[in-house]
Amino acid sequence: MADKRKRRRPDLSSDDDGEVHIPFKNRLKPDAAIIKTLEGITASLRSSSSSSSKTLTLNDLSLANACREVTDLSLASVQCSIESLVLSIARSILAGEGFSFSVPSRGAANQLYVPELDRIVLKDKSSLRPYANISTVRKTSITTRILQLVHQLCLKNIHVTKRDLFYTDVKLFQDQTQSDTVLDDVSCMLGCTRSSLNVIAAEKGVVVGRLIFSDNGDMIDCTKMGMGGKAIPPNIDRVGDMQSDALFILLVEKDAAYIRLAEDRFYNRFPCIIVTAKGQPDVATRLFLRKMKMELKLPVLALMDSDPYGLKILSVYGCGSKNMSYDSANLTTPDIKWLGIRPSDLDKYKIPEQCRLPMTEQDIKTGKDLLEEDFVKKNPGWVEELTLMVKTKKKAEIQALSSFGFQYLSEVYLPLKLQQQDWL
Amino acid sequence: MADKRKRRRPDLSSDDDGEVHIPFKNRLKPDAAIIKTLEGITASLRSSSSSSSKTLTLNDLSLANACREVTDLSLASVQCSIESLVLSIARSILAGEGFSFSVPSRGAANQLYVPELDRIVLKDKSSLRPYANISTVRKTSITTRILQLVHQLCLKNIHVTKRDLFYTDVKLFQDQTQSDTVLDDVSCMLGCTRSSLNVIAAEKGVVVGRLIFSDNGDMIDCTKMGMGGKAIPPNIDRVGDMQSDALFILLVEKDAAYIRLAEDRFYNRFPCIIVTAKGQPDVATRLFLRKMKMELKLPVLALMDSDPYGLKILSVYGCGSKNMSYDSANLTTPDIKWLGIRPSDLDKYKIPEQCRLPMTEQDIKTGKDLLEEDFVKKNPGWVEELTLMVKTKKKAEIQALSSFGFQYLSEVYLPLKLQQQDWL
Repeated sequence: MADKRKRRRPDLSSDDDGEVHIPFKNRLKPDAAIIKTLEGITASLRSSSSSSSKTLTLNDLSLANACREVTDLSLASVQCSIESLVLSIARSILAGEGFSFSVPSRGAANQLYVPELDRIVLKDKSSLRPYANISTVRKTSITTRILQLVHQLCLKNIHVTKRDLFYTDVKLFQDQTQSDTVLDDVSCMLGCTRSSLNVIAAEKGVVVGRLIFSDNGDMIDCTKMGMGGKAIPPNIDRVGDMQSDALFILLVEKDAAYIRLAEDRFYNRFPCIIVTAKGQPDVATRLFLRKMKMELKLPVLALMDSDPYGLKILSVYGCGSKNMSYDSANLTTPDIKWLGIRPSDLDKYKIPEQCRLPMTEQDIKTGKDLLEEDFVKKNPGWVEELTLMVKTKKKAEIQALSSFGFQYLSEVYLPLKLQQQDWL
Repeated sequence: MADKRKRRRPDLSSDDDGEVHIPFKNRLKPDAAIIKTLEGITASLRSSSSSSSKTLTLNDLSLANACREVTDLSLASVQCSIESLVLSIARSILAGEGFSFSVPSRGAANQLYVPELDRIVLKDKSSLRPYANISTVRKTSITTRILQLVHQLCLKNIHVTKRDLFYTDVKLFQDQTQSDTVLDDVSCMLGCTRSSLNVIAAEKGVVVGRLIFSDNGDMIDCTKMGMGGKAIPPNIDRVGDMQSDALFILLVEKDAAYIRLAEDRFYNRFPCIIVTAKGQPDVATRLFLRKMKMELKLPVLALMDSDPYGLKILSVYGCGSKNMSYDSANLTTPDIKWLGIRPSDLDKYKIPEQCRLPMTEQDIKTGKDLLEEDFVKKNPGWVEELTLMVKTKKKAEIQALSSFGFQYLSEVYLPLKLQQQDWL
């Protein structure tokens, strides 16, 4: 077979004259066989997650006092917390003691990676922010104002963006970084997520496939969203009633691959939910992915570019970004599998040499830095792949698969990956 | 009234204690009265566009020979055009004459703004691209390869991105700008739009409100899309069956304002369709807006930041961008009205001084450059507004309205604008 191929000298970069040149197409089993395997995996995942190994928390690790995490709170609880806080301030003032806020520190020195949780969390350091002090009076005023504005949002039950918040009092806030920073402080002080404060981020993610959910009261069937898909809602608290007959969630780094899979209705061939944030993950997409994973108990398989940024994006979905570490429990999705494009796929799938791009100095440095990160080190398979990438100094985009035909991704690469359970 | 206000010294930047401080809220008529006015406007627009003044074309202006525009072609016509082209090449080669392509020039010197059409179009200059010439052999090969790849897309009836196209033959194309450029050449040569070639752009726009349409065969009801809205499909040729009881289309520059209007379901108070490209307009959103305007015959009202970029974005929707001028007829939406935020609104709506930002040198230069552009000059109202902006050297974002309360935009500003038909 290999011999015969060599003699014909096939041009791997064209797919215009038939099936012969398409690597591995002949190894594919019938779809039904692949689906059967997937059903087994999903079932075992569900039984294990429902029975013994419940998700670890800081409490289980006796870290609840040493570390700090925020949770989703109802609007009523947020309102209640603010009112108690303000009452205690009033009492303090009436007692002639002025007032100050105790604000958790969010600096790097106060952050900790907890391997058991596979997340970055905040340690328990706090600092005092007194009103009657020349160096903190401004920040204390801003904090009070933000608390008041969030209280308004609770009463009206509406959502606003950070930008809206800033513009309600430009004179006080001066620039948006000041109101943004204090907003994160307020999240930590109240012990709730930023989305619990009804302050939301602009969304850019889309979802398509075997998922039904409610968005602000409207039932959405994601198999009936054409090629464009459903825009992921900016406010996770109005998302609910998730139902699905999917066997896995396919997390796609970029738009182009998403479009291919949506047009081919890949989710009808292999029951799945396809989601993408179109590049860097935004908060709304991260919250949505976590909610799907938690409620539907499905494996999450990630399809990223084979470069350090692909892996970095995967890590943001998986264990959070440093500047929102106080909220890592709600923003991260545990146990995401790295499906592809992995550095070892380049040879395995015979990606043509000209589709492999040389890594820049910066790429190589980023790759080496990632090798030092805890979330990579805990997974020997990932270390091996990343080491290979840094050694060969080659990267490749998902689109590189188009060299075997536009539909190679959906018709051969992904089905074969699923058949072979080839993820790490 | 003004006196009384002065004595109370209201703090305009807060909305927490009642209605008193909200400017103009008391001038609003009942919604039914405003809707009645809008119905009249929409009806007159429909009757005028259906009867006498049909859309002008290059033909009407006797410019069809002097200028070049592309049109939407069916996949079968594209396939047919490519096959005829290739046949003529084969004949030329068999006659011993080698072959060359005649490629329309897309340079600035070959572009023309046609005031009657309010669009930029291409003049008729072409250049020859012979195969048997050392300086053009590479480009001719690339052109042939792109024609072949597009022909494949026709046969398979699938859509791909420019990036996919590039990766099918990296060895030949070398970098993506080369395949992209030739793709635009091929559009011009075949006289069809790029989307007719089934090569699509990544979409980022969303739509919500009183619109029903089909996306790749699925019927989408945009009143039932929650807060996230429906992602605008990347491929306009699979969009159809548009139905609507809206009275206007609200074109919003940015995400934050879109979210406000979607959460408040503004489209249920005043029947409308709300659409945004979240910043710089992408091709998919421009095509979608034009299709809505043409099929539904609704007025389009634009809500932009009051800065030179807001107006520039409006101009891209309205009369196209320079580098896709050959396709301006299909990408542009005629007769978009500038609703706000207009420079004169800053005083009229008493936007607090601290929410007006000083324009940078670059802003002022961009503003002055815009004053020289034909699409601004043809509209005296726009010239007046832009002159005011450049004179006061102040800009403001849509979010500046949040200084009167988070919902001032949806509850007062927009209804009053509609009531007063305050657009240019």
